[in-house]
Amino acid sequence: MRILALQKKTWESPRDNMEAVKRLLAGRQGEAPDFILLPEIFTCPYDNAAFPVYAQEEGGEVCVFLSDLARETGAWLIGGSVPERDREGRIYNTSYIYDRQGALIGKHRKIHLFDIDVEGGQYFCESDVLSPGTRPTVFDTEFGRMGVCICFDIRFPDLFIRMRQEGVRAVFVPAAFNMTTGPAHWETLFRSRALDQQIFMIGCSPARDESASYIAYGHSIVTDPWGRVLAELDHREGILEADLDLDLIDRVRRQIPLEKGLPVRKEFS
Amino acid sequence: MRILALQKKTWESPRDNMEAVKRLLAGRQGEAPDFILLPEIFTCPYDNAAFPVYAQEEGGEVCVFLSDLARETGAWLIGGSVPERDREGRIYNTSYIYDRQGALIGKHRKIHLFDIDVEGGQYFCESDVLSPGTRPTVFDTEFGRMGVCICFDIRFPDLFIRMRQEGVRAVFVPAAFNMTTGPAHWETLFRSRALDQQIFMIGCSPARDESASYIAYGHSIVTDPWGRVLAELDHREGILEADLDLDLIDRVRRQIPLEKGLPVRKEFS
Repeated sequence: MRILALQKKTWESPRDNMEAVKRLLAGRQGEAPDFILLPEIFTCPYDNAAFPVYAQEEGGEVCVFLSDLARETGAWLIGGSVPERDREGRIYNTSYIYDRQGALIGKHRKIHLFDIDVEGGQYFCESDVLSPGTRPTVFDTEFGRMGVCICFDIRFPDLFIRMRQEGVRAVFVPAAFNMTTGPAHWETLFRSRALDQQIFMIGCSPARDESASYIAYGHSIVTDPWGRVLAELDHREGILEADLDLDLIDRVRRQIPLEKGLPVRKEFS
Repeated sequence: MRILALQKKTWESPRDNMEAVKRLLAGRQGEAPDFILLPEIFTCPYDNAAFPVYAQEEGGEVCVFLSDLARETGAWLIGGSVPERDREGRIYNTSYIYDRQGALIGKHRKIHLFDIDVEGGQYFCESDVLSPGTRPTVFDTEFGRMGVCICFDIRFPDLFIRMRQEGVRAVFVPAAFNMTTGPAHWETLFRSRALDQQIFMIGCSPARDESASYIAYGHSIVTDPWGRVLAELDHREGILEADLDLDLIDRVRRQIPLEKGLPVRKEFS
């Protein structure tokens, strides 16, 4: 199962960003991927002021672009995330998911909004502008069940317990950590979610742009069910590719059978 | 809040091991600790053959020793773990907990038994001999609520979610990882549990003994609510000491308010 994560720079407008996705993919050679993952908020700056300006309803120009991209590449597409406006005017941080034929098969609305205020570090308050999703998101493929969550969602281990119970074998995470939380937490979170649930984790960040109001950490990453980093980029624009050996999931689960002991402690969970 | 973890070698008999604890502590200088933590199975070899031989009922010689030790040092004592036999003859991997006056105030029976079989690596099957506990363990001190779990218990994030819900500020973990899982998982698990629940984690391992049937990793460790390693030993016998700034818990929880977003997603947990 070959995955590809596009760590692209973020430009001002959806059109410029859609062009940038095409350009980056056009420059790539090599085998066709089974899954393509884009970064969090890939169509406009990651900025509360930009979300209402560039938010589109489901089915808008960005969705048409993503559907075309999935069909043209023949890959499953987790379309990073974009600001989505619903009919009541609420805005969500939403990841649209397409099958290899370009059909929209699901979407994840970021559940845990990114509200942090680190002394001498990063401040951001998504909940000033965005509304939260309420449901975990999984989808079925010929490789088994996959999960999607967005950035701050990764900090909540019960979300991953739930996805594992539902049978996910890998979780795709459009994410934009920053220069405070990135160096401190990014790798540990991807390694530990993979290790705890004995799954693969794939994270895709925007490339770092020192001139942006919110500076992304980069470091798009793949971790495996043994808790190892399988592949990782630095901060620059680029494409992360990896072949995931899904049999490793079953081997690790046989070797460290975490589910074996669970029945006895039902009473406290 | 000053903690002290005794990374001691393990000898054959309970008496030799109790002597070793006294000897190690007698060689120490410095301020009195508030908490003393001993390693997993500190009274006999970590070996299924040894557990039935050295198991004692609650109140036996080992418990008397631990009570005396708590009273003499004036510290809270998490007495590592020992094989405990109950009246029906079942054996548990049990951590006894004493207050500063030497009163037994709780005990944790390891919930998740250590059954692993890593290709080309470690094999062990506690459940051949031991019975599992069924309940999380917390206790109250003048520093707030504390938790205890044993070794393999650390692999289960829901146990930590539960302890955090119950208000723990630090979790003490007698543990004996091995030369397969230690280098691969020890530090990641301690860092991620601390980071996810925004608590302190203290792990105490036996010192490494290359001649033992089960070779412990060592590396007794303290991690903080920001996910950092605050202190760590290598594999040799020694004492790990650390001063925990518990205010950091509240600072980190204010900066990254993980509980803020939880109400909206009640429906899926």
